Amino acid sequence: MTTPAAVCWRDNRLELLDQRRLPREVKYLTIRSIADIERAIRTLAVRGAPAIGIAAAYGLVVAMSAESPPDEAPEAFRSRLDGFAARLRRARPTAVNLAWAIERVCRRATAEASLPAIRDEAEAIHREDEAICGAIGRHGAPLITPGAGVLTHCNAGSLAVSTLGTATAPMYLRHRDGMPFRVFVDETRPLLQGARLTAWELSRAGLDVTLICDNMAASLMAAGEIDLVLVGTDRVTRNGDVINKIGTLNLAVLCRHFGIPFYVACPSSTYDAATLRGSDVVIEERGPEEVLGDHAARVPVRNPAFDVTPATLVTAIITEHGIARPPLEAALIGFMGRSAAGSARNGERG
Amino acid sequence: MTTPAAVCWRDNRLELLDQRRLPREVKYLTIRSIADIERAIRTLAVRGAPAIGIAAAYGLVVAMSAESPPDEAPEAFRSRLDGFAARLRRARPTAVNLAWAIERVCRRATAEASLPAIRDEAEAIHREDEAICGAIGRHGAPLITPGAGVLTHCNAGSLAVSTLGTATAPMYLRHRDGMPFRVFVDETRPLLQGARLTAWELSRAGLDVTLICDNMAASLMAAGEIDLVLVGTDRVTRNGDVINKIGTLNLAVLCRHFGIPFYVACPSSTYDAATLRGSDVVIEERGPEEVLGDHAARVPVRNPAFDVTPATLVTAIITEHGIARPPLEAALIGFMGRSAAGSARNGERG
Repeated sequence: MTTPAAVCWRDNRLELLDQRRLPREVKYLTIRSIADIERAIRTLAVRGAPAIGIAAAYGLVVAMSAESPPDEAPEAFRSRLDGFAARLRRARPTAVNLAWAIERVCRRATAEASLPAIRDEAEAIHREDEAICGAIGRHGAPLITPGAGVLTHCNAGSLAVSTLGTATAPMYLRHRDGMPFRVFVDETRPLLQGARLTAWELSRAGLDVTLICDNMAASLMAAGEIDLVLVGTDRVTRNGDVINKIGTLNLAVLCRHFGIPFYVACPSSTYDAATLRGSDVVIEERGPEEVLGDHAARVPVRNPAFDVTPATLVTAIITEHGIARPPLEAALIGFMGRSAAGSARNGERG
Repeated sequence: MTTPAAVCWRDNRLELLDQRRLPREVKYLTIRSIADIERAIRTLAVRGAPAIGIAAAYGLVVAMSAESPPDEAPEAFRSRLDGFAARLRRARPTAVNLAWAIERVCRRATAEASLPAIRDEAEAIHREDEAICGAIGRHGAPLITPGAGVLTHCNAGSLAVSTLGTATAPMYLRHRDGMPFRVFVDETRPLLQGARLTAWELSRAGLDVTLICDNMAASLMAAGEIDLVLVGTDRVTRNGDVINKIGTLNLAVLCRHFGIPFYVACPSSTYDAATLRGSDVVIEERGPEEVLGDHAARVPVRNPAFDVTPATLVTAIITEHGIARPPLEAALIGFMGRSAAGSARNGERG
């Protein structure tokens, strides 16, 4: 059993796994128009910045094909594409990857205003993302030793990215090699991406998965059941500070206390060399209803979506170019120079 | 606005706050028979070991009154009482306080087989618990300084104990004195006692309460918003290790990392001098359904109900006799000698 792909592209047909229905139901949405892809992105049927970018690029191809008049002039082609692009960009304005992928497709059309050209570009975006995840997996896999207990948080898996995910890529490769190990998944309050998505995709793929509440990590670490923590990230600042889903700092502090390595996996494009340190990043504070649900007393709530893990608590950052170890800034800047898509980025994985 | 009492006893009438309905509805159950009190305890309408003990003692009085024949001989009185006691003891066999309170009532009837005598014993149990909470509050209150941010976990409040609770007693007294400070409450997965009960009772009493997810504590500590952590406990072992709701160890490790004091509040009867250390205590592992709910993927779950915080991470333990500071073992044994109810104890607070 394997995990269904978040974005399926075959014979010019785009299907998106409807992540709103997970884990109860595995259902694909067929995307036939600009309205379909816009709605899928806006309503979070597809989520995770890289997956959104890939879906949007294919979505543009589908939209352009659907209404393609015969013998369309290059100017008319580009003008139609620009209209679709503008509409799609507004579907989720904070997802940096969305704008980046749309921009790549439009730029390609500037040089070559044809359906085959933009389809090729969308497929390139998809293939590059898969290649990056594969490289992260290969670099990270040796960190998982036979019998290890790996703890992860939120969803930096195939549902958010492409086939292998980022933090999950080393796990998928080790599993593919037949190596036995256990994955503990934090449920990741308040939106429960760990319980809903990561636990689901890893168990679908046949990995040995155990779900825990976020507050149980210390207890398992004290009992010697966790050998490493491996998480994704939304942004790494110049000095190596890691911005990721709320609760990540919690794990990093516990790792330091219990002497457990704390690893972060991400494409090198997640490195934001222009932002000096984590404290320079404004953390999104989300609404109280996510925390309160139906059960809680009606009281004020704090709901920061992300936290900042200082570079000093990070054992290493696994990228497609290799493993960056402290001093992280020097190591990451070295990798940046080698990244063709150095200015490309991956935004939040929600 | 004040918090409704968990156990109400007035004019020989016993009413229990139905905690299963909180925070949606404040509704009291009138206890009129042994079946009523048995059901209330068994179905968790009343919860928290001290509250269960008090409710059971009053429940015996109610049951004995309801069916009291005229001119009952002492032997017949004791025999009826023993029957009710045996039935009630089985209602929640792991709640040590339940058996302890029932035993006190029965012992009193051995000396004096009358309704007034057992009513007096039940009221004494209740008054002693209130006095202990008051003393914990007075000793602990100075630890909360003006403007402080206090973080607590689970429910060691008035709903679990009597009027002031244990961990909440210093907070209630400081608030009564008009001192401004903030309380952050961990929602306390999986059963959400913080979100459902503590946030509710503190906000009802007018305190400045903010609810957070358990995984947000590190982020708030890093931001300097937490000045102390104050929790209850189910058991303190001889060496000062603290057994409390899962997630407590997590907070204690964070406190050490961020240089924040970590306080535990409990009656001296919670000190279990016969158990040498926390690792000697078997931690209850509860069912997966508490963690999985309706939302999660159907995967294996770990659900330890409690964790062990080593004495080395505890700044101090606040008891009715004063504040025990390291070395905790010597300090706690000193307090034990002063405790009339030294062998009495308070079991889990659920």
